[in-house]
Amino acid sequence: MATEVLNPYYVAGFVDGEGCFSLCISANPKYKTGYEVRLLFDIELREDDREILERIQATLQCGHIYHLTYERYGWTPHVKYKVSCFTDIYEKVIPFFQKYPLQAKKNRDFALFCEAAELVKRKQHLTRAGLAELGKLKARMNVYEHPGGNR
Amino acid sequence: MATEVLNPYYVAGFVDGEGCFSLCISANPKYKTGYEVRLLFDIELREDDREILERIQATLQCGHIYHLTYERYGWTPHVKYKVSCFTDIYEKVIPFFQKYPLQAKKNRDFALFCEAAELVKRKQHLTRAGLAELGKLKARMNVYEHPGGNR
Repeated sequence: MATEVLNPYYVAGFVDGEGCFSLCISANPKYKTGYEVRLLFDIELREDDREILERIQATLQCGHIYHLTYERYGWTPHVKYKVSCFTDIYEKVIPFFQKYPLQAKKNRDFALFCEAAELVKRKQHLTRAGLAELGKLKARMNVYEHPGGNR
Repeated sequence: MATEVLNPYYVAGFVDGEGCFSLCISANPKYKTGYEVRLLFDIELREDDREILERIQATLQCGHIYHLTYERYGWTPHVKYKVSCFTDIYEKVIPFFQKYPLQAKKNRDFALFCEAAELVKRKQHLTRAGLAELGKLKARMNVYEHPGGNR
């Protein structure tokens, strides 16, 4: 039986609570700039909620699901849904959440994530200037902001 | 300006990730059985996500929002949206999530919560037998279940 897709607004609500849009900039000597840039979208839940991740995967039509035992930490096992392929991020994940927008504070992270994706799409992550720009975007993502605007 | 309501499917998705349906049974000598029974629906988020709680409150048309400083613990301040009035639970919260169902494992807790609400509606929580029944429902709520079915 095919996995049942979800109402897209449901996905937006679920992701606003549980999803994470992140920009990874890591040292990698293979790159001219010395750094590799990756955009990631993921959702990590306890193992017993695997089915909802399969339905999100079926709805977004991309990504992979991983089992995380956390055995050596003695934690509850988890499952992670992850999209790391740039084409999927750019052509599937971003258009989806532009059509069915996030409504909570995560929409600020998503806006920065989209800016980063545009830079990567234009290959700016392979230049020093583009990398500096991406570093600035990253610094503004997933940061706790007080209602008064202070960090 | 009136607070903008949310798409109901968005609310279902958000609540599947962040909401909590609980049944509180606490010793209280004012009651003949010696115990008070309360049904609660709540969502607790970091303080900077207050707006989404206000929009959920506007969508469900019930409940209150509380500010939690957590000052003495040194934690990040939080906000909590809470519905504890039984009439609101029974006439607003439950019908809403029956119409726009939860899709993740939280739907099991919600089903038990509905069973508990029916018992309370029929005043069974004021009897010893009803209280024992509610205790059994509570024991099955918010419990981590392994995919194999073992607790």
